[in-house]
Amino acid sequence: MKKVILDLAVTLDGFIEGSNGEIDWCILDDDMNFDGFLASIDTIFYGRASYDAWGNYQPEAGASPAEQQLWQAVHSKNKFVFSSQERQDDKATFISSDIADKVAEIKKQGGKDIWLYGGAGLIKSFLQLGLIDIYRISVHPIALGSGKPLFENLKQRVPLRLIKTNTFKSGVVQLIYEQAT
Amino acid sequence: MKKVILDLAVTLDGFIEGSNGEIDWCILDDDMNFDGFLASIDTIFYGRASYDAWGNYQPEAGASPAEQQLWQAVHSKNKFVFSSQERQDDKATFISSDIADKVAEIKKQGGKDIWLYGGAGLIKSFLQLGLIDIYRISVHPIALGSGKPLFENLKQRVPLRLIKTNTFKSGVVQLIYEQAT
Repeated sequence: MKKVILDLAVTLDGFIEGSNGEIDWCILDDDMNFDGFLASIDTIFYGRASYDAWGNYQPEAGASPAEQQLWQAVHSKNKFVFSSQERQDDKATFISSDIADKVAEIKKQGGKDIWLYGGAGLIKSFLQLGLIDIYRISVHPIALGSGKPLFENLKQRVPLRLIKTNTFKSGVVQLIYEQAT
Repeated sequence: MKKVILDLAVTLDGFIEGSNGEIDWCILDDDMNFDGFLASIDTIFYGRASYDAWGNYQPEAGASPAEQQLWQAVHSKNKFVFSSQERQDDKATFISSDIADKVAEIKKQGGKDIWLYGGAGLIKSFLQLGLIDIYRISVHPIALGSGKPLFENLKQRVPLRLIKTNTFKSGVVQLIYEQAT
């Protein structure tokens, strides 16, 4: 059974962006093995706006080989876009209704796991429907004081079970949880 | 030189209390070695309200020996209370002005470290004056969705350097930072 994986960077005080959308504090260290994460998934779930912004992004010609490989890996995945409006797209499947049922169907297909890419609206829907299996939260060594909270307007608490922690040389600590039942 | 240590429990989404003051999610595991922390300090800094609530707290007669020992250890420390009003108290020294200078003097006395007990107002003052040396933040395995944020109304970002992580059997992960310079 495929698992739905949320992977987010957060400040120590629980923000995913500063008050003006700042993400300049966000560290991508070479010991973080993001390639390994990409290798563990074969499917990506996007919200509509995130898909339009990043779903077919191509790095500039002068980008490093590492960056080009990363985007090639991203674009090799099966893509699903959750949107209120249906759309035909030859690079992704649009889903506009019955989210929980359709996610259950996709999970049954087996194979590798699913990256829940975002944005915030899609993550909120998945949280409220209880569709997230794994939370990979990378706590960054900074306090911002204000910004966009990790999980907004949860209707109920989400109890979690810690599976693993990874500490990176930059001081980022990745906390990996599964939903507690 | 004594260090000022902040020790707080926080939810994964960065709250120290729920919207109605809930702290029932807060875990005190026997592998957390809070006694060891108490043994590493010889001084406690309180805000006035926290001191009045907890500074001379005595556990009930039926409390466990562990709880009684814990409070005995707490009450064996040198206590300073930061308050806008002066007060004579035979169990604590009140400080009502020149916080930064007086903290610098106390730190110079040497010996063990200082526990910055709180409450929120005192922590905020210490943050803004740059007086916190060590942050021990225990991330609990739960998302609340709303509540009282870890650090409110910071005037500027606080960059930190990760020193150590401790993982407890309950799934609490303690992240220990020092102020980055």
